[in-house]
Amino acid sequence: MKQKKITLSENEMPHHWYNIIADMPNKPLPPLHPGTKEPIGPEMLAPLFPMDLILQEVTTEKYVEIPDEVRDIYKIWRPTPLFRAYQLEKALDTPAKIYYKYEGVSPSGSHKPNTAVPQAYYNKKAGVKRITTETGAGQWGTALSFACQMFDIECEVYMVKVSYEGKPYRKIIMNTYGATVYPSPTDRTNAGRQILAQDPNSPGSLGIAISEAVEVAAGDENTKYALGSVLNHVLLHQTIVGQEALLQMEKAGDMPDIIVAPFGGGSNFAGLSFPFLRLNLEEGKNIRCIASEPASCPKLTQGVFRYDFGDSIGMTPLLPMFTLGHDFVPSPIHAGGLRYHGAGVIVSQLLKDKLIEARAHHQLECFQAGVLFAKTEGILPAPEATHALATVIQEAKRCKEEGKSETILFNLCGHGHFDLASYENYLSGNLQDYEITQADIASSLAKIEGLQPA
Amino acid sequence: MKQKKITLSENEMPHHWYNIIADMPNKPLPPLHPGTKEPIGPEMLAPLFPMDLILQEVTTEKYVEIPDEVRDIYKIWRPTPLFRAYQLEKALDTPAKIYYKYEGVSPSGSHKPNTAVPQAYYNKKAGVKRITTETGAGQWGTALSFACQMFDIECEVYMVKVSYEGKPYRKIIMNTYGATVYPSPTDRTNAGRQILAQDPNSPGSLGIAISEAVEVAAGDENTKYALGSVLNHVLLHQTIVGQEALLQMEKAGDMPDIIVAPFGGGSNFAGLSFPFLRLNLEEGKNIRCIASEPASCPKLTQGVFRYDFGDSIGMTPLLPMFTLGHDFVPSPIHAGGLRYHGAGVIVSQLLKDKLIEARAHHQLECFQAGVLFAKTEGILPAPEATHALATVIQEAKRCKEEGKSETILFNLCGHGHFDLASYENYLSGNLQDYEITQADIASSLAKIEGLQPA
Repeated sequence: MKQKKITLSENEMPHHWYNIIADMPNKPLPPLHPGTKEPIGPEMLAPLFPMDLILQEVTTEKYVEIPDEVRDIYKIWRPTPLFRAYQLEKALDTPAKIYYKYEGVSPSGSHKPNTAVPQAYYNKKAGVKRITTETGAGQWGTALSFACQMFDIECEVYMVKVSYEGKPYRKIIMNTYGATVYPSPTDRTNAGRQILAQDPNSPGSLGIAISEAVEVAAGDENTKYALGSVLNHVLLHQTIVGQEALLQMEKAGDMPDIIVAPFGGGSNFAGLSFPFLRLNLEEGKNIRCIASEPASCPKLTQGVFRYDFGDSIGMTPLLPMFTLGHDFVPSPIHAGGLRYHGAGVIVSQLLKDKLIEARAHHQLECFQAGVLFAKTEGILPAPEATHALATVIQEAKRCKEEGKSETILFNLCGHGHFDLASYENYLSGNLQDYEITQADIASSLAKIEGLQPA
Repeated sequence: MKQKKITLSENEMPHHWYNIIADMPNKPLPPLHPGTKEPIGPEMLAPLFPMDLILQEVTTEKYVEIPDEVRDIYKIWRPTPLFRAYQLEKALDTPAKIYYKYEGVSPSGSHKPNTAVPQAYYNKKAGVKRITTETGAGQWGTALSFACQMFDIECEVYMVKVSYEGKPYRKIIMNTYGATVYPSPTDRTNAGRQILAQDPNSPGSLGIAISEAVEVAAGDENTKYALGSVLNHVLLHQTIVGQEALLQMEKAGDMPDIIVAPFGGGSNFAGLSFPFLRLNLEEGKNIRCIASEPASCPKLTQGVFRYDFGDSIGMTPLLPMFTLGHDFVPSPIHAGGLRYHGAGVIVSQLLKDKLIEARAHHQLECFQAGVLFAKTEGILPAPEATHALATVIQEAKRCKEEGKSETILFNLCGHGHFDLASYENYLSGNLQDYEITQADIASSLAKIEGLQPA
């Protein structure tokens, strides 16, 4: 029988995360102080993050050892399986070989716990009692709640109010993991009170929720803050995905020509692709790595490379990144995890140096791909994951046209069991694409023209 | 590091289901014709099931080979992992060793696809074009929709109307797998029209939905019917769970003293326990197998062993089983998969012969156990699975009191990602237990007194 699933035992789980900074030909530019515009050092981050994570943020070591305590929790769902998508290949009638790494087997149903667990661990090690964070749709908040519970740390989640009210079940799973969840804006912070004073009925935003979570962490020495993507240490933790996939592709006796992953802030994409990109940088291989982003939030394909703020109201350090401008408001697509205005610093530098590629897809194309995947391979993908699928299908069709049997590997980063409302919208014909114009982008980019070019 | 997860590669997946009938000291009594009350032969089932499944229903062969086509689909989620619950053990401060088999990694999030896939396969092999079934909360309907999609068969699901309207997302996942879902009662069948004539606003019931699905299948030679538990062939298919667990316990260098699984119609419990019960029957081992049922639907602990109908309106053959009476209406507990009035024939005979045990739990105790499990082991269990957990915790506490280091294995049959509303009820203090009285049970049992004693 043909091999469908390539598994690793827990003893085969990699012992190291891979840090691509060590191999980058052009290192990322430094973050700048939002006021002075001068490069900042790691010490600036100390109020928000424990020192171990700050050191991981700036390290140039090629490999970072995964602590045993983290590996022990990883075992609840890792190593994750890698599959050959025979039925999808057949449906597409393509000579391409398609593989996928499946992260939906985690307790929260996505790849997010890969970084939530080490972040909780290093905070625990530093004696931190409480971690704050923001969450939009809820996947990151759920992952961090789970991770904090594993290390007996309090978790406080600021959830965008419109999601808190519209998706009550997402809150419940966080509560079950012992987290406290607040609908943001709250009256618990200056940032929240300021917004509520202007608009008592504010639906909230990720930007406001970030401000609240950061303010609470900065104001209490026993409390730190955690972020679910964008930052270097988050990308680093996610490389466990690609480290495993590399071993699994070797076991399958194959090696990808193309790697595809969804792109929000960069950690999903980095997680799968960086350990393979290493082979390009180290051994001169030529594996194409494609980041799949929503056409309605096209920072990689239509944004500019420039210093910009990480949050929407300009509190964070300035980061050199591909951005649509920090007050760009993405359309309300269902892939909530991909609605972010900028790209992480490392990924941005790699794209600038043409070491990776990017592609944008509208959501109708993505849901069509998601339903085809469910019908062929049997697993219902999260809306974020369908963006990678849309790229995979394009590449598989190209392979067919060109008569090439290339090997494609993609990240099926989560299941869609929490996203059935979006599939209902799609199947009932009520889903739409959002066309954004050059003028929309130009308008939000104009507002960051005064910022330092990267 | 201590071993947490015991994995099997796809090559280690068992090649056979185990048929306990071959080893039972007292074989199950035959089903009786609902009209003549005479034993019926397999041919009576031909309008509803393909011959391969009917032969599996009556076979006395000890092992039944799993077809390659079924194993190929099983690989999407099987072999499933087996875990040692170190953190739960620690929280309970017990000398007991607790293991769990985790079936929540399947595409539908539960153990149901283990039988849905072979049922769809044998129907496909027999040239069947369409399969009908009923579903309550939706887990079985989802599993069968997935399986039919894999073999390109139409799937028609009669979903209890009150669930159809109250749990719209469950319908969507079935639609995504290409199934047609009707709120039952419908005007498509005589059974449905009869109910609607009496009560146009009927909320439906599993009994009515079964009648509709059976009527449609019986009336069309290209259509067959599928059931998700109770029947012998369904229990047979689920033994893949225990067959794997046996290999995994051997790999762990351990062997259970106690096996626990939730009990609805019997397939969940049979799936894990029968391959271990074989060791009792064959080698004289003394592994205790405990079926965990809801206290509000206590057919094993408070029912009688008697011939009764499988459905609520008396259309099916009479089966010799532990029953509360076929018109017993279980309280609306959240573990919808356990709300069935009777127990499958094989399990009933085993209980009568004292080869297995049973225990009943109220739902508050179960949800408390579920939250403890989520907080310690990290996985949120389905409400059905929490019933097994409640028994496990009782046994682990007994081990502590008695100072015994017994080994307990239980079936974590599904994740709770579809059941967050029930956790919300529990966490907000709005959940209640349902006390049923001896009079309630006596009343529904009185109605089957005229039926043949088994």
